[in-house]
Amino acid sequence: MNYKELLTGLFNGESSAASRLITMAENRSQGLSEAMKEIYKHTGNAHIIGITGAPGVGKSTLTGKLVKAFRALSRSVGVIAIDPSSPFTGGALLGDRIRMADLVCDREVFIRSMGTRGGAGGLAVATNDAISILDAFKKDIIIVETIGVGQDEIEIDKFVHTLVVVTMPGGGDAVQCVKAGILEIGDIYAVNKADHPEAQRAVADIEFMIQLKKVAENKQWKPPVVMTVAIENRGIDILVEKIKSHYNFLVDSGIIKLKYIQRVRAQIMSIIENRLSRRAKELLSEKCEQYKLIFGMSSEDITDPYTAADLVIRQLCSQYMNESAGNGNELK
Amino acid sequence: MNYKELLTGLFNGESSAASRLITMAENRSQGLSEAMKEIYKHTGNAHIIGITGAPGVGKSTLTGKLVKAFRALSRSVGVIAIDPSSPFTGGALLGDRIRMADLVCDREVFIRSMGTRGGAGGLAVATNDAISILDAFKKDIIIVETIGVGQDEIEIDKFVHTLVVVTMPGGGDAVQCVKAGILEIGDIYAVNKADHPEAQRAVADIEFMIQLKKVAENKQWKPPVVMTVAIENRGIDILVEKIKSHYNFLVDSGIIKLKYIQRVRAQIMSIIENRLSRRAKELLSEKCEQYKLIFGMSSEDITDPYTAADLVIRQLCSQYMNESAGNGNELK
Repeated sequence: MNYKELLTGLFNGESSAASRLITMAENRSQGLSEAMKEIYKHTGNAHIIGITGAPGVGKSTLTGKLVKAFRALSRSVGVIAIDPSSPFTGGALLGDRIRMADLVCDREVFIRSMGTRGGAGGLAVATNDAISILDAFKKDIIIVETIGVGQDEIEIDKFVHTLVVVTMPGGGDAVQCVKAGILEIGDIYAVNKADHPEAQRAVADIEFMIQLKKVAENKQWKPPVVMTVAIENRGIDILVEKIKSHYNFLVDSGIIKLKYIQRVRAQIMSIIENRLSRRAKELLSEKCEQYKLIFGMSSEDITDPYTAADLVIRQLCSQYMNESAGNGNELK
Repeated sequence: MNYKELLTGLFNGESSAASRLITMAENRSQGLSEAMKEIYKHTGNAHIIGITGAPGVGKSTLTGKLVKAFRALSRSVGVIAIDPSSPFTGGALLGDRIRMADLVCDREVFIRSMGTRGGAGGLAVATNDAISILDAFKKDIIIVETIGVGQDEIEIDKFVHTLVVVTMPGGGDAVQCVKAGILEIGDIYAVNKADHPEAQRAVADIEFMIQLKKVAENKQWKPPVVMTVAIENRGIDILVEKIKSHYNFLVDSGIIKLKYIQRVRAQIMSIIENRLSRRAKELLSEKCEQYKLIFGMSSEDITDPYTAADLVIRQLCSQYMNESAGNGNELK
């Protein structure tokens, strides 16, 4: 099946087509760019929500409950899980999967896990494409679930309209979040497992830190802190309200346009980085003559990785210039 | 002070010179490439050790004890901490810092934390450079401490000779590690906090998983599992023995040459990716005419991020080709 048939399937609401297009994005398959150019024309309608937080805070359970809450409001939902310990990605205990089963049977819910490292490269670019695919697939709400630690490959705050940072009481989790930098970037904070005796204190801690931090872009928005007990479905309705309020705020203030530009920039950069990186890896690969760069480090010209990098960049650019000379064809 | 003075300082054993060169690497400063080319000639002597594991397993305490153990063997030690929650990076509680204080006062110990996201870009390239700088600084042992979750920007296994994966008993931590992919890559496993009643079971779990997994490159090496209670200095001597054994194994088997090639490849790729990515970001920046790509998405030529990426790559390559035309000068 070529990508044109997949596009027809996607616009006709076939889950299998959405799924295969996301696989193409993960594998950076032939025909993907052409498909994405077409898909891109049908995007811009979804509310993209990020759910981020350390492993164990209950992101996945919360995501599951949010999906149900949005379904109860008759909104169609897409979920992209890029947390390696998420039950959506198959890493979970049996109980988790059973809990997710009733979501999977809802045709208006599309759930997809994304591979982490070791794929054809570029989790950022593939995630961005997956969001666009689900947007064109006419999902009203797209939830991206990811671990938000400091060394994260995905700068999730640049991909979404509304970022929910999930923490839990006790164990200094809020402090860990500050260290990891994710308390800087939330539009909404959820203190999950809020039946814990220290929940109120965790809320106070976060509210204190919100007061301290400088809100750069959207000074008019004061991030609310919501207490949830996801496993008992408590606090979810309030969280949904806050998510909706944030979206309305973005629209009313015009900030949604900035978010759009930010996302497009992130998309362009992720495409560029992925392409150049793959091309450079090819040039360095075993099959390539250039590989002797590494073994020939002691030769006169190539004495260190910096000199080798210069040579690879020159060759890469020369290739691209030759390929695109005069024809304006798509680059690989 | 120009980089030549810093190099003189580095080779004379001045910590301040090492520190400033690492800052140059973090900032990708002018003169860095020239400095690194010189530094690279003085590398290849250190044993590079990675310490990785989830937040809270006690990586930093273990690292501190390892430093002391290697010092007792009269080895000089450099530590690079890229864990945002590490006490080395200033994120710790007061008690942790006090515990580290006696290390800081040892002139043969050099400790440096690396910034995570938000820097001049390229934690991977800066970490690689920092390792080379400490190698040329004549540290016998270089320890790189990092969180090893699945979405980690740093592929630490490609940077080091010996990778120690730290876990702890209870709470399914070993299972979390499997999910995150870090149980695939360890040369040595440390079950820390082994005074916990479930420690034996954690060891058995890991040993079972080691049996299951396919050891690709170094079939002759069966990763040992060591029980430690870092805070009480228990098990550290055995861990040091295993680390030394692994290094001897690498040398005796000749695999150390493969590790060298792997590290040089990773270095070259990180330099290339960092350079191209920064150049592309410049082209996309506000000050650049190219920025209208984003606002002009509705124009006839540029309708989507893929087309925009094509244009930026063409411009980037054209710039590089012009800069390097005929002169062979270093690229930026």
